[in-house]
Amino acid sequence: MADEKKLTPQGEDFSAWYNEVVLRSELADHSPVRGSMVIRPWGYGIWENMQRALDDKFKETGHENAYFPLLIPMSFIEREKDHIEGFAPELAVVTRAGGKELDEPYVIRPTSETIIYSMYAKWVQSYRDLPVLMNQWANVMRWELRTRLFLRTSEFLWQEGHTAHATAEEAEEETLLILGIYRKFMEEWIGMPPITGLKSDSEKFAGAVRSYSCEALMKDNKALQAGTSHFLGQNFAKQFELTFQSEAGQEEFAWNTSWGVSTRLVGGMVMTHGDDDGLVVPPRLAPVQVVIVPILRGDDITPILEKAEQVRLQLKAAGIRAKVDARDNLSPGAKYFEWERKGVPFRIEVGPKDIEQGQLALARRLVPVGEKRKMFLPEAQVLGELPARLEAFQTELMVAAQARRESNSIRGVSTVGELEEALASGSGFVYTGWNGTSAVEETVKARTKATIRVLPSEEFRSDKAPTKCVTGEGASVAEVVWARAY
Amino acid sequence: MADEKKLTPQGEDFSAWYNEVVLRSELADHSPVRGSMVIRPWGYGIWENMQRALDDKFKETGHENAYFPLLIPMSFIEREKDHIEGFAPELAVVTRAGGKELDEPYVIRPTSETIIYSMYAKWVQSYRDLPVLMNQWANVMRWELRTRLFLRTSEFLWQEGHTAHATAEEAEEETLLILGIYRKFMEEWIGMPPITGLKSDSEKFAGAVRSYSCEALMKDNKALQAGTSHFLGQNFAKQFELTFQSEAGQEEFAWNTSWGVSTRLVGGMVMTHGDDDGLVVPPRLAPVQVVIVPILRGDDITPILEKAEQVRLQLKAAGIRAKVDARDNLSPGAKYFEWERKGVPFRIEVGPKDIEQGQLALARRLVPVGEKRKMFLPEAQVLGELPARLEAFQTELMVAAQARRESNSIRGVSTVGELEEALASGSGFVYTGWNGTSAVEETVKARTKATIRVLPSEEFRSDKAPTKCVTGEGASVAEVVWARAY
Repeated sequence: MADEKKLTPQGEDFSAWYNEVVLRSELADHSPVRGSMVIRPWGYGIWENMQRALDDKFKETGHENAYFPLLIPMSFIEREKDHIEGFAPELAVVTRAGGKELDEPYVIRPTSETIIYSMYAKWVQSYRDLPVLMNQWANVMRWELRTRLFLRTSEFLWQEGHTAHATAEEAEEETLLILGIYRKFMEEWIGMPPITGLKSDSEKFAGAVRSYSCEALMKDNKALQAGTSHFLGQNFAKQFELTFQSEAGQEEFAWNTSWGVSTRLVGGMVMTHGDDDGLVVPPRLAPVQVVIVPILRGDDITPILEKAEQVRLQLKAAGIRAKVDARDNLSPGAKYFEWERKGVPFRIEVGPKDIEQGQLALARRLVPVGEKRKMFLPEAQVLGELPARLEAFQTELMVAAQARRESNSIRGVSTVGELEEALASGSGFVYTGWNGTSAVEETVKARTKATIRVLPSEEFRSDKAPTKCVTGEGASVAEVVWARAY
Repeated sequence: MADEKKLTPQGEDFSAWYNEVVLRSELADHSPVRGSMVIRPWGYGIWENMQRALDDKFKETGHENAYFPLLIPMSFIEREKDHIEGFAPELAVVTRAGGKELDEPYVIRPTSETIIYSMYAKWVQSYRDLPVLMNQWANVMRWELRTRLFLRTSEFLWQEGHTAHATAEEAEEETLLILGIYRKFMEEWIGMPPITGLKSDSEKFAGAVRSYSCEALMKDNKALQAGTSHFLGQNFAKQFELTFQSEAGQEEFAWNTSWGVSTRLVGGMVMTHGDDDGLVVPPRLAPVQVVIVPILRGDDITPILEKAEQVRLQLKAAGIRAKVDARDNLSPGAKYFEWERKGVPFRIEVGPKDIEQGQLALARRLVPVGEKRKMFLPEAQVLGELPARLEAFQTELMVAAQARRESNSIRGVSTVGELEEALASGSGFVYTGWNGTSAVEETVKARTKATIRVLPSEEFRSDKAPTKCVTGEGASVAEVVWARAY
C-alpha cells in the first residue's frame, strides 16, 4: 500500500513521531495481546543482524549458547529477597495447565537467574568446572502498565548471559568485559555511542551487588538504558547452593554475573538516527543496504529489469545486501518514499536513459549539506564505490551521534537550580557531584524528573572531579550523570 | 568430570540408551520444571547449525522472519473448532499478571495460527499484498504428561512458517515446497532420510485440511514424525476474517499453510546415528568437527600446545570447526572417551613423537570394517585430506541410514496378521493397502500399536499398488505405511 502521508515532525511531537515511524516503516505493530507487540520482518531483520554481531562477540570471548525453561517455579523466583521484591509486580503467572490447577504456580521468566543457577549448582562441583560462561537468546515477560513499541513491552526478546566464577575478581572482570563488548557493539554497529558506568543503588538490578549500564542519548535528549551488566556477588549462589570445591579443598560459593541487551536496541536505533522522513538504518544493520528501483517506462521493460538484476548480483558478489523492487503497482516515486521511510542507506535507479548512457542514479538516505540527494554516475563507479560509501555512511552516523551527545551534555553543574535549568533548556546528560545518598536522588527526581543514569566510568568523567554534592549538602563522593530517561 | 562408565547397549534397552546418551553427552538435562528440559551448549550448538541451514533455505525461497506474541487470548484459540479440540488438553494458562486476575486468560502458544492470522487480516487488503510468507523461530508449550528429552517436552523450540495465498493451488504448492525443503535438509544435513506423504485424517494437524509429514526410521525401528507441512485451506481465514480483494474486485478468503520442525530433530539425529559408544554427529551439524588433543608428556609441553594451536588455525582457515582440548586435569584417554561419546567426527592427537616425525594421529568416530580407529599420517596429508574426509563421513552416514531404512521396510503386506508379524520380527515401515476408514486404523492400532505414518508420496510408493485393504475388507484406496512411532 502506498502511504505518502508525512510523519509528524520530530520537533513538533517526538513521541508521536516515534510511534508513527515504527508503525509506518513496518518495524512493528500492536497486537491483540495487551502490552505485546509483533515484530515485523523489517524490524526482525535488523534484530537478526544485531544478534549475529553480538553472538559472534560472545563466542569469541568463550561464551556458549544454551536454552533454559520459560517457566520458573514460584518458589525459585521468591528465594532471593531483593530479586522477588523487584520483580513481583510484573510477573505473569501460569496457574492452570493440562486441564488442571497446578499445585505450585509457575511464572513466565522475567529474567532467568534463578532457574539457571539452580542448574549450575547441579553441574558445578569443582573449581575445574569453572568458569561457566553461558548465554541464551530468549523471550521474557514483565507485565507493564504503560508500554511503548520496542522500548517497553510486556514480552520482549533479549539475550541474557549468566556466568559463574571461582573468585570475585574474575566475576568483576567478566562484568566489565561484557560492558565493553556492549559499548563497542553500540558504537560500531548501531552508531549509538553510550556512556558507561555504575548504577546507583536505587537503580541497580534486583538481586545485584553492582549494576553497570550503557546509557545512550536519544534525539529528544532523553536517556535510554541500552544494556546492563551485573555483578551478582554470591547472592544467588547462596540461595541455590551453587558451591564448588576450591583448589585448596574448601567448599565455597561461586560468584555470578548476568548481563543483557534486548529488542529495545531497535528503538534506540530509531531515536538515534531517524529524521522527519523516517528511519535511517546503519548499513551494518540494514536488512537491505541498497534498494534498486527499475524505472519501468516504455514498451520493452525487459532490458531494464535485466539490468536491475545484474546490478543486484554484482552488489551481492561484493558482499552488499541489495534488493530489486520490481512491484508493478507502485510508481517509482512511491517506492522512493517507502524505502526512504524504511531507512535504506542507498537507492539505485535504473531507467532506459541510464542504460543508454551507461550510468546509474544513486540516491543517499542522508544528504550532505549543500549537496543533492541524487547523483548520476557511471555504472562502474557506482558499483565500485558502494562498499566504501556504506562504510562512510556507517561512520558518519556514529560521528554525528557522538557530536550530538557531547553538545547536549553539560559538565560541572553545581546546583539543583542549574540542573533544572539545563534540562529545561534542552540538555541531555548533566554531570554533577553527589553525596551518595538516595535522598538526593529523590529530591532531584521530584523537581526535575531526572534520575542518576550512571556514576560514569573513568573515561567519561570530567577532568575536574566535582567536590560538592549538587544539593550543596555535603561533599561529593562521586560524579554522577543525570538525565530524564525512557 | 571424567565419566567413563559404559552406556547401556542399544540392543539391551534402546530407551535407556537414549536417555543416558542425551544426558551424558551433555546434549540436555532435566530441569526443575515439570516436562521442560535444559538444552546444554553441545545440544544447542547442534540446534544452531540446524537453524542456520534451514533459515537459509527459507530465505532463499522468499520467506522472511518475524516474531509474534507468546501469549494468545483464550477467545482466539477457541475460534477454530478442530483447532481448540486438538489443543485444549495441552494448554498452559496465564490467569494472573501484574498482581491481578486477568479478565480474559491467555494461553501460552501451543502453535501460532490464530494470533498470526489475526495480524495478517490487518495487513492484507488486496491480492497485491499476497502471498505473505513468514516464519518465526520460537518456543511453544504443550503440556505433556509423559515426556522424553527432545522427543516430547512441554516446552520446545521450533520454527513455524505461516503463509497466506490468493489461491488454493498456490497454497498447496507452498505446502509441498516446504515438505521438499524439509526432506532435503534431513537428508543432506542430518543424514536422516525420511519418507514423505500425507497424514490420514485421524493423524492430521488440528485445523488443517491436509497434513504432510516427513517420517524417519530410528535405529529401534520406530518412526519419528520429524517435520510437518499443513494445507489449512480457508479454515483459519474464515475465523479471523483474513480476506482480500481479488484481481476481479471480489472479496475472498485467503488460503493458508503452516509448517514446522523442532528441537525434536536433535533426538532424531541421536537415534539415527548413535551407537553404544555414544553420539555420532554429522559433520555439517557438529559444533566441533575435529577435536585436537595435545599429549602433554615430558617437561616441556609448550611446543606441543603450540603445534596443537597451529593445527587448529590451519583447520579453521580451511573452514573446519576445530577445538583444542588442553585441559590439564584429564588424561588423554579420558578425553578420547568423552569426545567419542559426544560424537565428534574426527580427533587429532599431537604428542612429542608426532612432532618429531612430522606426523599426526587421526582417529575417526566411525571405523570402517577391518580398519583401525587411529591412523598415523604425515601432518600435511591429515590437514589436506580433512575437508574431503568430513564430506565422506557425512555421506556415509546418509548412505547407512538409507540402507537401514530400506532393509527394515517391508512392502506388499496383505493381512493384519502378516503386519503384526512383520512388526514383531523387527520391521520398521510396513506398506499395505487401506480402505480409507478410521475403523481400520483403530483395529490395527489395538492389535499392533502401529499407526498409519503416511500415505506415501509418489516416489515412495510400491511399484505395484495394493488392491485390497490390509483387513481384507474392501478395496484399497491408497497404499499406507504403518509403524510404531514416537
